[in-house]
Parts: sequence; structure tokens; C-alpha cells
Amino acid sequence: MPLTDQELGRLDAYWRAANYLTVGQIYLMGNPLLREQLRPEHIKPRLLGHWGTSPGLSLLYAHLNRAITQHDLKMIYVTGPGHGGPAIVANTWLEGTYTDLYPSIGQNEDGMARLFRQFSFPGGIPSHVAAEVPGSIHEGGELGYSLMHAYGAAFDNPDLVVACVIGDGEAETGPLAASWPSNTFLNPARDGAVLPILHLNGYKIANPTVLARIPEDDLMALMRGHGYEPFLVAGDEPAAVHQLLAATLDTVLARIRDIQRRGRAGRMPMIILRTPKGWTGPRVVDGLPVEGTFRAHQVPLAHVRENPEHLAMLEAWMRSYRPEELFDPAGTPVAEVTALAPHGEHRMSANPHANGGLLLRDLVLPDFRKYAVPVTDPGRPISEATRVLGGWLRDVIVANPDTFRLFGPDEVVSNRLDAVFETTDRAFDATIHPDDDHLSPDGRVMEVLSEHLCQGWLEGYLLTGRHGLFTSYEAFIHVVDSMVNQHAKWLKVTRGIPWRRPLASLNYLLSSHVWRQDNNGFSHQDPGFIDHVVNKKAEVVRVYLPPDANSLLSTIDHCLRSRHYINVVVAGKQPAPTWLSMEEAIMHSRRGLGIWRWASSDDGEEPDVVLACAGDVPTLETIAAADLLRQRLPDLRIRVVNVIDLMRLQPDTAHPHGLPDAQFDAIFTTDKPVIFAYHGYPALIHRLTYRRTNHRNLHVRGYQEEGTTTTPFDMVMLNELDRFHLVMDVIDRVPGLGTRAAWLRQEMVDVRQSCRDYTREHGEDDPRITGWQWTPESETAP
Amino acid sequence: MPLTDQELGRLDAYWRAANYLTVGQIYLMGNPLLREQLRPEHIKPRLLGHWGTSPGLSLLYAHLNRAITQHDLKMIYVTGPGHGGPAIVANTWLEGTYTDLYPSIGQNEDGMARLFRQFSFPGGIPSHVAAEVPGSIHEGGELGYSLMHAYGAAFDNPDLVVACVIGDGEAETGPLAASWPSNTFLNPARDGAVLPILHLNGYKIANPTVLARIPEDDLMALMRGHGYEPFLVAGDEPAAVHQLLAATLDTVLARIRDIQRRGRAGRMPMIILRTPKGWTGPRVVDGLPVEGTFRAHQVPLAHVRENPEHLAMLEAWMRSYRPEELFDPAGTPVAEVTALAPHGEHRMSANPHANGGLLLRDLVLPDFRKYAVPVTDPGRPISEATRVLGGWLRDVIVANPDTFRLFGPDEVVSNRLDAVFETTDRAFDATIHPDDDHLSPDGRVMEVLSEHLCQGWLEGYLLTGRHGLFTSYEAFIHVVDSMVNQHAKWLKVTRGIPWRRPLASLNYLLSSHVWRQDNNGFSHQDPGFIDHVVNKKAEVVRVYLPPDANSLLSTIDHCLRSRHYINVVVAGKQPAPTWLSMEEAIMHSRRGLGIWRWASSDDGEEPDVVLACAGDVPTLETIAAADLLRQRLPDLRIRVVNVIDLMRLQPDTAHPHGLPDAQFDAIFTTDKPVIFAYHGYPALIHRLTYRRTNHRNLHVRGYQEEGTTTTPFDMVMLNELDRFHLVMDVIDRVPGLGTRAAWLRQEMVDVRQSCRDYTREHGEDDPRITGWQWTPESETAP
Repeated sequence: MPLTDQELGRLDAYWRAANYLTVGQIYLMGNPLLREQLRPEHIKPRLLGHWGTSPGLSLLYAHLNRAITQHDLKMIYVTGPGHGGPAIVANTWLEGTYTDLYPSIGQNEDGMARLFRQFSFPGGIPSHVAAEVPGSIHEGGELGYSLMHAYGAAFDNPDLVVACVIGDGEAETGPLAASWPSNTFLNPARDGAVLPILHLNGYKIANPTVLARIPEDDLMALMRGHGYEPFLVAGDEPAAVHQLLAATLDTVLARIRDIQRRGRAGRMPMIILRTPKGWTGPRVVDGLPVEGTFRAHQVPLAHVRENPEHLAMLEAWMRSYRPEELFDPAGTPVAEVTALAPHGEHRMSANPHANGGLLLRDLVLPDFRKYAVPVTDPGRPISEATRVLGGWLRDVIVANPDTFRLFGPDEVVSNRLDAVFETTDRAFDATIHPDDDHLSPDGRVMEVLSEHLCQGWLEGYLLTGRHGLFTSYEAFIHVVDSMVNQHAKWLKVTRGIPWRRPLASLNYLLSSHVWRQDNNGFSHQDPGFIDHVVNKKAEVVRVYLPPDANSLLSTIDHCLRSRHYINVVVAGKQPAPTWLSMEEAIMHSRRGLGIWRWASSDDGEEPDVVLACAGDVPTLETIAAADLLRQRLPDLRIRVVNVIDLMRLQPDTAHPHGLPDAQFDAIFTTDKPVIFAYHGYPALIHRLTYRRTNHRNLHVRGYQEEGTTTTPFDMVMLNELDRFHLVMDVIDRVPGLGTRAAWLRQEMVDVRQSCRDYTREHGEDDPRITGWQWTPESETAP
Repeated sequence: MPLTDQELGRLDAYWRAANYLTVGQIYLMGNPLLREQLRPEHIKPRLLGHWGTSPGLSLLYAHLNRAITQHDLKMIYVTGPGHGGPAIVANTWLEGTYTDLYPSIGQNEDGMARLFRQFSFPGGIPSHVAAEVPGSIHEGGELGYSLMHAYGAAFDNPDLVVACVIGDGEAETGPLAASWPSNTFLNPARDGAVLPILHLNGYKIANPTVLARIPEDDLMALMRGHGYEPFLVAGDEPAAVHQLLAATLDTVLARIRDIQRRGRAGRMPMIILRTPKGWTGPRVVDGLPVEGTFRAHQVPLAHVRENPEHLAMLEAWMRSYRPEELFDPAGTPVAEVTALAPHGEHRMSANPHANGGLLLRDLVLPDFRKYAVPVTDPGRPISEATRVLGGWLRDVIVANPDTFRLFGPDEVVSNRLDAVFETTDRAFDATIHPDDDHLSPDGRVMEVLSEHLCQGWLEGYLLTGRHGLFTSYEAFIHVVDSMVNQHAKWLKVTRGIPWRRPLASLNYLLSSHVWRQDNNGFSHQDPGFIDHVVNKKAEVVRVYLPPDANSLLSTIDHCLRSRHYINVVVAGKQPAPTWLSMEEAIMHSRRGLGIWRWASSDDGEEPDVVLACAGDVPTLETIAAADLLRQRLPDLRIRVVNVIDLMRLQPDTAHPHGLPDAQFDAIFTTDKPVIFAYHGYPALIHRLTYRRTNHRNLHVRGYQEEGTTTTPFDMVMLNELDRFHLVMDVIDRVPGLGTRAAWLRQEMVDVRQSCRDYTREHGEDDPRITGWQWTPESETAP
């Protein structure tokens, strides 16, 4: 029996207090201490909240508190079943943190009344373990991300223990199922510990959970198979469960310390807690069993205002926690209850890691100008943008040995960032073979074939005050669409919470993009992640399309310095022209879009046509089209505009980066044709610009969902984004160009056909389209 | 030794032939039979394809062929590592199916030359096991969906064995990790069998895989934990592996038959195949080991055209398969090779289940008119749209006992479709307790807390010629964004493949939508799935927003009859007005959008303002605004337009459902203000309509990414979609309305404030906003 009678009494009192406060939040808008008999007007008109998971969450919170005090631990608590928001709110109020941060919610009767009333009440707090809840890094609104967040929090935090409660419902999700092997990427010598606690309360909304219904032997085997040492705690008699859970926690924490001391991978412990859903709540309601069944999921008594029997049951239920023993006459928790709670930053709700902005330090960033590609004239030399970036990222890693990581689904080399392996490895903590390439438990590059894990780890890392960059194939970043939503919402909400400090931005580098999928084809082509992100709040979202290596350097430097944004950067990895010197690139990045005079022929005057472009491949095709037009229609005044910051296209009323209308009109004219070659789906450009004066003359080329395994130029032709088609677009839209233009148009049709024929015969691109300069000799080359 | 020498010889010959054809596809554009020494001009200019996984895929194909013949099986082959496209193409050519379907690719030297040349070649075939490959239901371009597709294919196909090869890379993905417990939802008495084969070749792109590097005991425990009986086949010596694999397959298939015969859940077998990556390929290239390492992933010899040593190695490699023993002088596979292959529909590449359209039968659909809500006058009675639908769906299930299933993440009851449980259960094949609600191995409702699994099962079910409906929370359907992409691409491509027959559409019913998240709040609010889907090819995508119960019935009936689309339907589950009689609903659904005269006051003349709406909640607010305006500004001519088929808004040049401009202008006018209340992100409406004449006067209200846990009306107010704000919008945009309107506008500001205050005080919506009719008395009610 690890617990003395006094300890047991305190644990149980604390737990009862948390449960009482949980039920109070769900039901009451008055009479918080039950000083009088419950009446309908004490009951909220709309009964919202999830009771089922709450008693288990509070039981664990109480026991972890005991362990923190006993073993002097630094711990945070990740609540997978975040729908149990009222339970965690209750615990943080008992610890005093809630009152520290929200002084109007005092630890007294008035505060308790406010605490109850505000929960899921208009003008109050939401129902999950949202950003408003002290100590939360994980809302748990969408299920499945708890364990990956927990691991992300533990990386590079050697003194931290991350307790992670996983609901047996969410354990059915893909992201959670993928998270168990995160232990293969954690280095006990350098990282903190994650303690997964699988809470088998048996039910989801209306169904049992899979893990609660498979044989216990299988469940234990599953956890061993995942490399954990599972400890089972099961029961429905509180005193027995208290003793067993306390003993198990002591064992498990000792095991963790031992593995950490030995500084090497071991079989990390985890706990399976099997207790009834809605434990200590009503057993039978309206003749149907509730406690321990799916009926306990949300609000077990649903008609309390109207049904006197339900009202009486609620009162009996709340009184069963013996509130008079838990709170003094003023409504303040008594010493017997609070004796258990840790103090100061030892409280899980006050641990600064759970408010990462408090701990966030600026990255030490080497001067990216020193990594510049020296540009002799626009387009020269050829460079691989991501390879250039790789050199700088290598030195970012060197300069920030424990606060910056790269994340990606096994694509760092494929994305040509492999210079980073001159200084670090891929993190891996299972068997390593001599032939393996840069693999070690100490690596700073997190590669796993799961975008979910990359995203979740990075979110956990950022939420606890560190920095990172996620590189991925553009098409498959859609895998994390829903996760991005949740993070964007977190960022938006935390802007309104004064005690939450800004985090490092969530940075994406999408390099294997839609136009360069030679090895793969149609299934790997989708530039729609940008569209998805742009739906989120303008104050949170940034999208950059640097056209070359130097502008990519400047952009990523900017992103790594920024705070509290989601930055999406799309850039090429293939050899491509370097258009801008570093000083030009910096200016261009700062402006976000601009006229490229050297590619234009309007001499600063009003042009006949604007050729706009965004993205590396569209920029190449646009420059090539402009070159061709300048040679063949020398009287045509062309203006070339490149857009690097997509949000500049929006009105300044719609986005902080939006260009004022006057400036937009000055660049895009008010009445001339604009041919816009865009990296992604054309509709996005229309959507961003439909309010602009000249929108009616805007013609956008982009990805039309056409493609297969073929050559790069064939791919742009399939989608009518190629230089020849852009020339045709200009001729079709600029009035009065005359016969010469008509002949040129026909020539373009022919040359497209001949390029297509050449490619189908030779299996590679027509050599005439190498580069962007169109020389008459080359016209007859093949 | 299960194999005689002759069988072993045939198996090995077949395998060598497949490997030879695989290498040929990756490298050669001439000299397919190596009649002369390889020269650079025989080599493709761009070397694309994934060799690493291919020998394993062909080894399994060969052995499964033997088993099919031996045991007279009906089997299909799901290729998780779909990047091994050339391997599966090679096998289907050896079986003759490829030539059956593509007669120009004969089983002779010329055909072989074409087979080689076309692979990953412009104008040829893509690199994955794409829709062009006979026998494929799973491209495997994006990794992780193989096992869920396999289970989906097996449901209700009792005679089918679905062999599913799972790459150890893709095994790291969330969706694959979530798929193992699919066995808990399969009923061996009624469904077919899935045989998972985990192919541990050890590496991803540049990294080892997790499952290849954990202790073998853990791996076996993991599979046992998932409820399977694992069989390990490991080796790198072909003859030994052949014997072991053949013996294992015989055992495993006997086990499956036994479990099926006993008609109850058993521990289904699975195979772990551990063989070298790029087996039988070059061992060392440029001094670095290749076979059995990550370097074998794609093209092991990368510079064959330029480097004579690589060229010689390629030739030696290809000759190591002894092609002269495999193909006769005409290039036709010899009998020793083809003896092994099954014939006719026993060939996995010719099994009709893998071309589901061949087997697809129309659903027997009860007449939905009989389920109509009788409408007395517009808006009466109140009904719950999905509950009404549930009654019809129940009878759809009755009428189609083995070709229709419902899929959803435990939300059928929450989405109020529970009438289906009057006739069926939820499928579950683990322990069932007496208190469980409608759970049985025979259930037709597939509920699991994983949108990935729901989507993947349904895709597998549809691809093999059946029907289904996926109901989900609107916000979390983003979980499957990337999967929808892949399915949309499959549908698009198969439209161009004559031998592929149309499939039943992929139907979504999103019911717990953005405006009705009382219990949850901000994290559960995202209407952006529509935006995501609209980026896909117009010929594949349909979006419907039925405004009431009767139009929902009509819409879902239409969707279940349709073929080869992705239909997204968003509808409410809460009590709401029924606007349309069934006949009106049918007409309205057919037209896709229309003027609601009974709500309008333009008497068929040119209106002063158009109030448009799409979605149940926006429709309610619009009708309420129109009612208020009719009462308070009786001279104002209002036209109310409801949009049910969102694609009607696009020009007819952009979408087959697009409304011609003249019709659009007739409805939306060419110059009057249009206030459009839309269910989702407003930008989508602009994007669909920016080319319309009157777009400059279009003002859209929708979800602005503002919300929390609050009341329904407070939620629409937070996003300025409420009736009062719509009235303000009208007043702001219709010129010359005078003082009376100015007073009304101020009244709207005040009434919004008073509604907000009421809600914050009472915790529920102001009773004045119940329904949609604004009565002067009620103005002073509270």
C-alpha cells in the first residue's frame, strides 16, 4: 500500500473536489455550493459538456500532482480527450493558477459561481481544453494529436516529463495510431520523457472502442510491440484504484529516471488505465444504465430543468462528493484538498513549457547574405534554390544546437537540403546499420514517413517555445490540412489571451511541387494547400513564392524570425535561373511584389500588357515569353511583375499585407490586359483580386488538374502555362497588334506541337526550351 | 519442401521474367530482348521509376498466382507500394491481360519494346500502379491507404481473397497504422478475406523503416496485438525463400478457409516478408552497396547513357535473368514462364472486382416522395432534415442488403440518422456487451473513430462495384482531404480508360456543420471542405446545399443514382423550417437554384435587391431578413434566390452544371445589389461568380472564422450572417431608401445588441429570433 490513510484521504478529497467542480460547470448557473436545494433556475438552459471522460482525467491529474510533489518533477499534462475541458479547468482552479490568470474567478464562492457559469456559456469559455485553459498545449477538440504533441514537447527538454492522456476513442485515429513509434525518435539522453496513459473508459459517442474490447493479452502485446512496457491499472472501486495507480506511477517514474540516467534507449513505460466512463456519476437514468456505458459520454442527466426527478438526481450526485468537506464556508478549497497540489511552476497548469512563448528565444541566424548566389546578370547563374538554402540551414542548426529542428517525411535529401548532414544526422533510436546514411539518436533532422507525425511533433515543439521548419512534397501536405486548421485556430485565439506569449511561426517549405513530379506524376500534383491555408484568418496566414535561390534565402530568414504565423513557402529544388542579386532579392521580398524592369519593355511608361507571375516555374515561363515577345514584337510595351508575397494581391482591408488599391492600380494598370502565370489553381488569384479595379482584364494561367508522368515542359504545356501559350494569350488580348502578331500566334501553335512531338519521340524536352532566351537560330535546331 | 523442382523452376522463371520486364521498363527504349549489346541509344534519356520495391512485389505476385491455381481462388492484389508500377505492369503483361486490354502491346518483341518505351515516357503510362494498370484498385501514389482499400474490397464479397502488400515505409503513415484493426469490423461469415503482407525491405527513400529495425519479437507482438497471427518469411537466397513463401502461403490460405468455414471471428493470418530492397539488382555501384540498401530505392544505375561502366552493369544485370530462357525468339513468354499464371478471370489482373463498374448494379431505391414532410405553407412544419432522411436510408438498407453501407466516425445517431438501426446494426466483431447499442458482426453501419478508415473502406467498397454514403462532421472531413484528391484523380483518369466502367459516386453527407457546433465550438468549425473539392476537375465534382428535409431527400436520391462523381452534400440535423413541398423540392433540386416567389416581393418584376442564400442556416436567416424587410419597408422589391447546387453559380464554360450567363443575369439582375448569405467561406462565392455581369454588386456573407462555444444565433451574429445584419446590408446597398430605412438600420444595430445581451445573461437565444417571422409584438417580448 503505497499511500498512507492521510494521503489516500487527500487524493480522494482532491478528486472529489475536481469532480464536483466539473459537474458544477456543466449544470449550474447559481447556487454553486448547494447552500440551498437545487431549483430549476440554478440550472443552465443549455446543458453542454462531456462528463464521461472527466473523472478519469481528474483522477490522473490528482495522482500526477502527488507524484510531482513526491519526486520533485517538472511535468506538463497533455489531455487527449480535450472534450473533458471542465475537468482540467476544475483542476487548474484548485491549483490556484486559474485565479492567478483570471483574477475575477477567485477561489471563493463568487469565483466558483463565475467558474460554473462561464463554462460553455455565451461570452464564457469553450468546452475543450482550449488555449484559454492554463497549462494546455493541446485543445483536443479534434482527436488524435495528443501523443505527437507530447513527443514534440519532450524533444530537447531533458528535465521535462510529459504526461499524455490518450482517449481510447482517439486511439482509433490514424494520427494517434502513427504516434506510438515516436519513441524510436526520442533520445532519452537528450530529450525529456513522455508517459503515455491510455485511458480505456470503453466508449466513444455511441460505440465501444476497439482497444477496450480486444483481449487484454492482445492489448499488452500491442504496447510491447510498440516498444513500451505497459502497466495496467484497472478497477471501479476508488480506494483500490488510488492505491494501484499511486504504486504504478511510482514504479513507472522510477523506470523513466533509470532509463534517462543510463542515457540510452530503453523500453519506456506506459500506463493503461481501465476505469468506468462517467465514473461516480449517475448509475441509472430513466431506467437505463449510464455510469460505465456510452450514455455517460456527454450530459448524463439531460432534462434537469424540466424534470424534477433529474433535478433531484443531480443534487444527490453533486452532494455525493460531500462539498461541505471540500470547500470552507467562503467557498475556498480546504487544506485537505489543496495539500496535494504542487506550488508555483511545479503546477502543471503553471509550467512555463505549456506557455512556450515565455521560454522562446530568438534563433541565432547566420547572415544569409553570405550564402547568396552571385548573380552576374538576371538569370545567371543557374542554381538550385533549396540546395543553396541547405547551406544556410546547416549553419542555423550549428548555431542553435537545442532549439531548432527540421521535420519532413524522408525528403530532406530529395529536397536537396542535404548540406545539413554535414553537421547533423537524422534522429533514430532503433538499430543502426553501418551502411545507414547519417542516422543517430542525436540527429536534429526528424524524418518519418508520416506528415501527421512531422506536423504534430513540430507543433509540440513550437508550442513549448522552440523553432522548426517542415519540408514536404506539396501534394501531400494536404495530409495535415485538418491539423493546420487546429493550429491556425490556436494561434488566432491566443492572440486574444494576454498571458499567452507569441510562439515561433509554423513554417512550411514545399519544394517537390506540382510542376516537378517527373518521377511520379498525376497523383503527386496538387498545389491546393495554399488555397486551404488562405481560408484561415488573415492575421495568421502568410504565403510566399520566392522565384529563385536568393529570394528563398531571404524569405526563410524572414519566416524564422517571425512569430505566431503560419508561413507557407513554395520553392523549387531543380536547377533554375537566379534572377535577383541578394540586394535585389531582399528588396523584392520586402516589397512582396514588384516590376522587373530588366525583363520589361515599357520603359516605365504605361504598358500595353502586364505579364505577372508567382512561383519559380511560372516566373521562368513568363520571362521566356517576355523575351520572345520583345524579340518578335519589339513595339509591344510589356511590363513584367513578379509576386513573391501572395497576400499582397489582396486589398489592404482584407489582409495586413494587402497592397492599397492605388499602388495595385499603378502596377497592374486600370485597363490593360494582365496575363498572370500562377503556381497553383488559377481561381485563387481571382479570389484574391476580384475587388481590384482591373480585375476584369485579369487572365490567369495555372494548374488545371492536368498531368501525368512526363517531362517538365510537357507538364506546363498540358496546363497551358508554357511560354508559347502565354505569348498566345498576349496576342489574343492586346488589341490591334496586326498581322505580324497573327503570324507569331500561328508560329506558337506550331512550335508547341513540335515540342510535343519531339518529347513524345525522344522522351525529353525539346532542347530549344532550355533556359528562357529564344534565339532565332535555335528555332531550327532539332 | 512444398514445391517440386518443376514448380520451383517455374516460379523462379516467372519471377525472373517479371524482374527482367521491370528493369526493361525503367531503362530501355530499344533492344528489348538484348539481341545486341546495349548501346546508349537504347537507354531512355530520363531514367524514372522505383526498382527497390519491385522484386518483392513480383515475387509475391508469382506465388499468389501459384496459390490461385492450386486452390482455385478468386483473388485481387492491392499494391501498397504503388511506386513499383513497372513490376505490376510486367506481371499483367505476362498474364496476357495487358495485351487483352491494350492490343498494341502484344506478347511479342514489338509489344515488349512498346511496353518498355511507354513506361514513364511522355505520351505513355505513369509510374505507379495507376488506373491504367489492369487489376488495380489502388494506385499507391500517395502511401498509406492499401489496407483500408483492401478491407473495403472484402466487405460483402465472401468469395474474394484480397492480398494486400504493405510497404514498410507506408506502414509509418497514420492511415495505415489505423487500418490494422479493420479486422474488428470484418465478418468472416459474410465478408471476404484480407491477407495483409507486410513487406519489410528495410528502407524508405533515404532512411531505414521503423518496423524493419525494431526487434523481431516486438514486431510479432505488434501483429498479435492487432489480432493477427503473423507468419515470418525472411531470406535473401531465392530458392529457400521460394520454398518458405510457398509453404507459408499454403498454411495461411488453409487458415483463412478454416476460419471462414467456421463462420466466426478468428485470428486471421498475415505475412511478414523480409527480403532485400532491390533484390537481384546491382550489389555495388560506384563503390557503394546498393542491393539491400536505401540506394536501391529508385534507379540503382543512374548514368547509364553517359557511363559505359554503368551501361555494362545494366546489361549484366538484365542478362542475369537469362532472358533467352524466358522468352522465345519472337519475344513471347515461354510455357515454362506462363505455366504458372492463372487464366481468365482467375488472373488477378482480370478479376472483375478490380474493375468494379463491371459488377455495379443500380441500387433499389424506395420512392423518396413517400418519406416527404407534408408542407402546409412555406416553413411549416418544423422538421429535422437528417432524421427524415434516416427513415428513407433505413429502407435503402433493407432493399439492398449486400451492396450498400453507411460509413461514419461514430456519428450516425449524433447526425440523427438512427432510424437505420430499426433494421440494422453497427458492424463490430469483437466482444459485445448486453448494454451495447445495435452492435453486431452483421451490421451495415461502419462506425470507427477514424475518418481515414471510413473514407478508405468506402473507396475500396466503391472501387469494387458497390454503393455507400459517408456521414461526418463538416470540420473534420478535412482529415481526408488528401485521400479525396487521390480518388478524384482516379475518377478523372478512368473517364479516359475505355475498359474501366463507371463507379458509384463517392457521397458525403456533412451534417454536424459549422453553424451547429453548440457542444464544441471553434475547433469544430470549418466549412472549407467544399473549397477543397471545388479545386478538382469540374467533371468529377458536385456540391449540394439542400435547404430543408424534402430537398435533402431529393438530393441524396439523386446522388445515390449518380455515377463517378464526388458529391458533397451539406445539410442540417437540427429542427428547422421545411420550406418546400416534395414536388417543389424536386423541381428546385433539378433546377439547382431558383427564385422563391413566396418569400419575394418583386412580383416578378425587376427587384431593388436580390437576397440570395445557400445552406440551411443562411436560408433561414435570409427568409427572416426578407420577412422583416417586407414588413418594415413594404415598398422595397425584394427577390429571394435559393441555391442548392453550388456549381450552378459557375459559368457553363467552367462546369457542366454552370448556368448560362443570360439565365444568371435574369435571376441575379445585371445591376442590382445582391446580398448572398452563404454557408461557408465567402470567397468561394466570389470565385465561382467573378465572371458574371453583376459580380461587382455581389456582397457575400458567410463564415469568417469567428466562433466559440455559444448559442446558434450568437454564432451567426459573430459572423455577421444574421437576419439583422442582412437587413443592414440591404439598407447600406440599396440607394434612396430614405429616413425610414435609416431608422430601421439603427433599430437593427440595437436589436443585435439586445440579442447579444440577452444571450450573455440568460445563456440561450433571445426568444424573438425563434423561427423566421418577425412580429411587432415579439419586439417587446423579453
